[in-house]
Amino acid sequence: MTQDTDRYKNSIKLFKRATKVIPQGIYGHLTPVITGPLASPYYVEKTKGCRYWDVDGNEFIDYMCSYGPMVLGYNHPEVDKAADDQRKKASVCNHPGEVMIELAEHLNKLIPMADWTVFGKNGADMTNHSLMIARHHTKRKKIIMSKGSYHGTAAWASGAGHAGVIDNDVENMLYISWGDSEGFKELAQKHKGEIAGAIFTPYHHPTWANQEMPPEGFWKEIRKTCDEEGIVLILDDVRAGFRLDLKGSHEFFGFEPDISCYCKAIANGYPLSAMVGKEEIKISASSVFYTGSYWFSAEPMAASLATLKILKRDNGIEKMRKMGELLKSGLEEMAQANELEIEVTGPPQIPFMTFKDRGDFRNSQLFAVESMKRGVFFHPHHNWFLSAAHEKKDIEKSINVADEAFKEVRKVFGASDI
Amino acid sequence: MTQDTDRYKNSIKLFKRATKVIPQGIYGHLTPVITGPLASPYYVEKTKGCRYWDVDGNEFIDYMCSYGPMVLGYNHPEVDKAADDQRKKASVCNHPGEVMIELAEHLNKLIPMADWTVFGKNGADMTNHSLMIARHHTKRKKIIMSKGSYHGTAAWASGAGHAGVIDNDVENMLYISWGDSEGFKELAQKHKGEIAGAIFTPYHHPTWANQEMPPEGFWKEIRKTCDEEGIVLILDDVRAGFRLDLKGSHEFFGFEPDISCYCKAIANGYPLSAMVGKEEIKISASSVFYTGSYWFSAEPMAASLATLKILKRDNGIEKMRKMGELLKSGLEEMAQANELEIEVTGPPQIPFMTFKDRGDFRNSQLFAVESMKRGVFFHPHHNWFLSAAHEKKDIEKSINVADEAFKEVRKVFGASDI
Repeated sequence: MTQDTDRYKNSIKLFKRATKVIPQGIYGHLTPVITGPLASPYYVEKTKGCRYWDVDGNEFIDYMCSYGPMVLGYNHPEVDKAADDQRKKASVCNHPGEVMIELAEHLNKLIPMADWTVFGKNGADMTNHSLMIARHHTKRKKIIMSKGSYHGTAAWASGAGHAGVIDNDVENMLYISWGDSEGFKELAQKHKGEIAGAIFTPYHHPTWANQEMPPEGFWKEIRKTCDEEGIVLILDDVRAGFRLDLKGSHEFFGFEPDISCYCKAIANGYPLSAMVGKEEIKISASSVFYTGSYWFSAEPMAASLATLKILKRDNGIEKMRKMGELLKSGLEEMAQANELEIEVTGPPQIPFMTFKDRGDFRNSQLFAVESMKRGVFFHPHHNWFLSAAHEKKDIEKSINVADEAFKEVRKVFGASDI
Repeated sequence: MTQDTDRYKNSIKLFKRATKVIPQGIYGHLTPVITGPLASPYYVEKTKGCRYWDVDGNEFIDYMCSYGPMVLGYNHPEVDKAADDQRKKASVCNHPGEVMIELAEHLNKLIPMADWTVFGKNGADMTNHSLMIARHHTKRKKIIMSKGSYHGTAAWASGAGHAGVIDNDVENMLYISWGDSEGFKELAQKHKGEIAGAIFTPYHHPTWANQEMPPEGFWKEIRKTCDEEGIVLILDDVRAGFRLDLKGSHEFFGFEPDISCYCKAIANGYPLSAMVGKEEIKISASSVFYTGSYWFSAEPMAASLATLKILKRDNGIEKMRKMGELLKSGLEEMAQANELEIEVTGPPQIPFMTFKDRGDFRNSQLFAVESMKRGVFFHPHHNWFLSAAHEKKDIEKSINVADEAFKEVRKVFGASDI
């Protein structure tokens, strides 16, 4: 790994301090992305638009967008103003504010299948809640999910073999391979009358692997089987929601879930998650007691209303799509010029790039490190995110940086065997 | 129930709108506290200090403090400034800010048993995580808790029979009655080598019941049994933390847990929760993957640092204790003057008042309704919270209001059979 011993020295200094007081120093999805010291930033100092500056003063064009939440640009003045105005009146209290109703009305109108909405803080608050609702609604226990899909870090979602997970946590989980609607049908037959719900992401976005769009007919078949077998179909739209389609990613793929879970892009970084559902499930959703200390705070709801309205007004999703397309074609062109074979998978707004000819991601890591050195943050093993704050000039700069990073990859790992 | 058809008319109007788009209209712990329409506020318009104003313009001295989070007063200028200053630089991003380390260092120094800290959003993020850590640490499955204790709304914590909970969720849960350290010892013997952890609140604060302090010797016995049997002792200090003792409620009661969970008062309403633990468990805590979309946002961490420093500087806990004592003695005096027998239980900072001679809480509800009419929010079936913003004049006004409310209770339900 090429290193620059001065570039991230404040990050490293802070990280050393952190390991003394925090297990791992930095944990969860923000665990430093590049193995080996001095290869990537660890701490942020300042954010603005599609850029951020680390604690060493390095500037980055950001293709992670905080792993999703930042969708309009960091420190967006209109969103921040909406949040501030609300907070100056009231945020956390013994009662919700009127903005909770306004936001629920807005979402129910925006998302065609939505007859009701509830709010939480984490995406996982909603995915966990959806399982309890499905179980209560059907009086059944089992849940089908796709192998390798991420639905949060609860024990049922982490899966057998992960630290802290016991067999009882997962004994009602059943698994299909992504896209296998036939396997889904077979499981539903085999466990007839036992399956409460099925939870899937709109398309497959695992880490350390290419993204996969749903195969032709997948969602139609899943919906059909769920209808036939009385299974509650839950969409985990936490990662893709409000980036593929303002009306929900299911509209993008042309199907209707019974419940859909949102977080990430819903409020441009203000802490909020939401679940929407169909009328038939509203009473069951009312029956499951579910709450959290800050779930009714008005400030993030005001931020969310502003975010969703601005996304619509500025045609943000189409802009992200266009910028994502530009990035994809630029990366492909530069890779080819450097005799490297890459794959850019997933929707343009949420792309991911891998190299075709290695399985260990060491070339991806080198590409990321060399891009970071030149001011662009591309993640080596997690899908990326575009925002509505990415402009053509940012994409062009990033493509030029990618060209230089590809050259370094070629130097170390050689040309692809094309 | 005495009603005032005009007093909460905007609340009712909004609530009707809400039921169309949100299951139950308002859910979770904010479900309107008084059964029957027009008896209590449902929506907040403005907050300030220890007061809030509902959407009908009614003003309340608040003894719920947002069910705990508000500890220094709503819209506290110093906390808000610390939060703003941080947010203007950076909050949500691909990396944490330095403030995460500062806050972890602060907590590890403040809380004597704390060797490490992690952060989340909900109190339940931490209680759920603590179970996974205890299981991973001990390679055991079972967890002991106290019947009727609240540790969040996850299925394991909600318990058998609650909507959405299946038998598998609770098959590794074992229960003692609050304070029964002998029963705890017996369970530990009966399931020798099978018990991963024990999770308790520092004292018992159930809803619809008096609060109970731990019996003499309880914590010493629990700690001893945990040591003998290798059980991870988890303190759920979400509700009481930073109100009984800045060093953690275990210091107040004179014992050391292995893990302690905080939320509520930690950041004066900014969304943050935290877990601290002992060195021996740090590696296990590192091994369990746990994260959330907004867990690393810097703004609530800056708010938390400010909150904890101000609480210390202003001797906030002692102030809350004094004001709580004043309230307690005032309520007792006024009740007696009205020939009503009441009990005020729990610590003065987190008091709860019940009437001795009825089990159905109808007199408590009337007391609450009549107090609300006169500008004081006392909850009829959930413990109350004091804040450092409550001044002597607020308490005195509240006691006078209580006197009038007691008179109404006496009119309807008669004098106590003293």
